[in-house]
Amino acid sequence: MSRVVQGPCAALSSLIEAVGVVEAAHAVRECVLPESLRGPTEQRRGIDSAARDLELMARIGGRLVTPDDAEWPAWRMLGLSQLDPGRDRDGAVPLALWVRGPRSLLESSERALAVVGARCSSGYGDRVTGEIVGDLAAQGWTIVSGAAFGIDGMAHRAALAVDGRTIAVLACGVDRPYPAQHARLLAEIADRGLVVSEYPPGTVAHKHQFLARNRLIAALADGVLVVEAGLRSGSRNTAKWARRLGRPAMAVPGPITSASSVGCHRMIREGEALLVTRAEEVIDEAGPLRLSLPDHQKPDPGDGLSGDESAVFAVLPKIGSRLPRTLAEQSGLPLAIVRAVLPALELSGLVGTDENGWYRIERPPTPGPLA
Amino acid sequence: MSRVVQGPCAALSSLIEAVGVVEAAHAVRECVLPESLRGPTEQRRGIDSAARDLELMARIGGRLVTPDDAEWPAWRMLGLSQLDPGRDRDGAVPLALWVRGPRSLLESSERALAVVGARCSSGYGDRVTGEIVGDLAAQGWTIVSGAAFGIDGMAHRAALAVDGRTIAVLACGVDRPYPAQHARLLAEIADRGLVVSEYPPGTVAHKHQFLARNRLIAALADGVLVVEAGLRSGSRNTAKWARRLGRPAMAVPGPITSASSVGCHRMIREGEALLVTRAEEVIDEAGPLRLSLPDHQKPDPGDGLSGDESAVFAVLPKIGSRLPRTLAEQSGLPLAIVRAVLPALELSGLVGTDENGWYRIERPPTPGPLA
Repeated sequence: MSRVVQGPCAALSSLIEAVGVVEAAHAVRECVLPESLRGPTEQRRGIDSAARDLELMARIGGRLVTPDDAEWPAWRMLGLSQLDPGRDRDGAVPLALWVRGPRSLLESSERALAVVGARCSSGYGDRVTGEIVGDLAAQGWTIVSGAAFGIDGMAHRAALAVDGRTIAVLACGVDRPYPAQHARLLAEIADRGLVVSEYPPGTVAHKHQFLARNRLIAALADGVLVVEAGLRSGSRNTAKWARRLGRPAMAVPGPITSASSVGCHRMIREGEALLVTRAEEVIDEAGPLRLSLPDHQKPDPGDGLSGDESAVFAVLPKIGSRLPRTLAEQSGLPLAIVRAVLPALELSGLVGTDENGWYRIERPPTPGPLA
Repeated sequence: MSRVVQGPCAALSSLIEAVGVVEAAHAVRECVLPESLRGPTEQRRGIDSAARDLELMARIGGRLVTPDDAEWPAWRMLGLSQLDPGRDRDGAVPLALWVRGPRSLLESSERALAVVGARCSSGYGDRVTGEIVGDLAAQGWTIVSGAAFGIDGMAHRAALAVDGRTIAVLACGVDRPYPAQHARLLAEIADRGLVVSEYPPGTVAHKHQFLARNRLIAALADGVLVVEAGLRSGSRNTAKWARRLGRPAMAVPGPITSASSVGCHRMIREGEALLVTRAEEVIDEAGPLRLSLPDHQKPDPGDGLSGDESAVFAVLPKIGSRLPRTLAEQSGLPLAIVRAVLPALELSGLVGTDENGWYRIERPPTPGPLA
C-alpha cells in the first residue's frame, strides 16, 4: 500500500488503524472505500508489487519497516500522529519505511539531531557544519539529514568521519542515488548508517515529496539545526516541522554579507529558530530529560495536573502563543521537561499549538451541583 | 554642582527638584544636607569653579546645557527619571550636560540611534558598521556613540562621511580628547556634530564613569545597535540601558568563528538583543510611531485604560516578563505603539520592568461598597 498511496495519507492511516492492514488492503483492492480514499488510491489500487518490491529490497540489502516491527521508531512517530491533519497537510505518520543499512532504526533515532541547510553552502558553512556535527556525532548523537548537496552532504560526511551514526532520509526510493553525484556517499551511509524513505523502491523524487520528506527528518530527531539557508530554503520547512512537533529548531548565524546565511538570520529574527554557535548549545536545547525536579514542582494532589504540568500550564498564554524555551524560562522548569509536558497537556485538550508555539485552551467549566 | 558630585547623583537631583538649584547649591556649600548627600558632596563641596569652567568652555566653543535650557532633551531624559534608583545604580538624570558643537542637542537627539561595539573590531565589523550607519545617517538619523576605538569610531566616521549628524558622548570632560588617538575625530565631531559629557571640563575618564556614560548613550537614542562585541563588552551594558529605558536593543550577527561577534550572538541568544542585518530592520524597530490604529484599538470608555493600553496590558505576563517585540506580536499593535504605551502603564503602576522585559503588576482590588 506504500506504493498505492505514495507518501503520507492520513485517510489510509486511519483506515488501517480502524480495520487492520490486511482488511484495509482488501478494501483498497476492491475499492470499498470512504470518499476520502477513492481519489488517492484510484490510480494505483490495482498495483500489487509487494513480493517484487521486497525481493528487490532484499537484493540491495534493504528491508521494509512497518509499525509492527520491533525497530519501528514508535515514540518518534507519536509526534506526527498528534498533529492536526487538517492544518498540517502531509503530516501523517508514514505507513511504513523502506530502510537500507545495518543499524536498527529505533536505536539509531534514539538520540538524534537533524542537521540541514543550503545546497549552495559557503566555505564557512561547510567548516561550521564539520565542527558542530563532528562534536555531536563524537558524543554519540545520530546525525539525520537529507543527503542533498551542500550542508546535508557535509553533515553526513562529518558524522561518518568520526565513526558516528547518520541517517539519510530520501524523497525517492532508497534504491535510487539522489543526487546522483552522492551515489558513493549514499552507498557508504547504507553501509555504515541508514538510508530511509517512505517511498517504495524505484520512486522518483518529486517536489512535494521533499516537503513530506522534511517532516520525517524532523520527526526522527530531537531537534533540527539549520547551518546555512538562503531566503527560500527547504531547511526553513524542516525547522517548521520541528516546531510543530514541539522540538527545538536552531540556526547558526553567519556574516550578514553572506547570502547563505540570510535564511538563518531571518528564522532567528522571526523567533522561528534559536541562535546556536556550538555543539554544547545544540545539546543544551535538544538534550536528554533532566528528571530531578525541585520540591515545589512535585505533583499537587489537589489538582488534576502534575506539578510540572500545572507549572507549564500556568505560564501558557491565552492570547498569542509561546515557544517551549520561553515557557521554560517562565516556569523555571528545564526545557526538556517543558517539551515533554506539552504533548501530554495537548492530549488532555488543555493546550494548543500553532506556528509560533503553544497556547492555553481554557478548561470548560466543570458542571456545578445543579447541572 | 556638576563638579561637586561627579556623575549621576539621584539624591542631589531630587534635592534640586525639591528646593530648586540655587537653594540646593547653597545647601551643599553649607552642608545642610540629608545623610544621603553628605558623603557624595563632602569631598568637593567647597569647590566653586563655575565661572572658570564656563569661561573655559566658552574658549573651546562649548556650553553648559541645563534642564532649564531650551535645547535640554527633556523627553529623552524622562526615561532616566522613571528608572528605579534603587535598582538602577547610576541611573539618575544628569544634573547638566557639557556640550561642544554647533547643533542643538534637543534637535540632534530627536531621531537618533546609538551604534556601539567592540574596541577590537574586525574588518567585517568595520565594513558592516560603515554600511548600516551610512544608510541610517543618510536617512537623517543621528548616530550616537562613545568615540572609542573600533566600532564607535567607525560609527562616527561613517555618519560624518555622508554629512550625517553624530553625537559623541564621553566619560571625561569634553575638553579632553579621549582616546588621544581620536583627537582629530573628536575635533571634527565638535565642529560638525556634538561632543557631550556630564563631567565638567578637565575630568579624567575613570572606569565607573564609562558605565554611567553608557546610560547617556542609550538615553539619547531611540535604540541601541551593537555591531560587534566580545564576551565581556561594555556594549552589552549600553544595550541593557536601552532595555531598561524600554527602547530596542539590537545586535548584528557575524561568523561564529569570530571572537568579535561572540557578545552579539550571546545577546541575541539570551533575548537581550534583537538580531538585525540591515538599516531598514533597525529603523523598523526604533522607527517613529505609527499613529493610525485599527478600530478595535479605539479607547474603550468602560475601562480606565485606552484601547492600546488595555491591549498591551492583556498580553503582559504575570510570571516572567516579555520584550516589547513579543508584546507587539501578541497584541497585534505596532511595536512603536507598544513601546509608547509601556512607560505610561508603568507610571500608573500597572506594569513593571526587569532585565528581560515587562511584566504585569496586578491591580489592587478596588474597595467594594462595604469598604
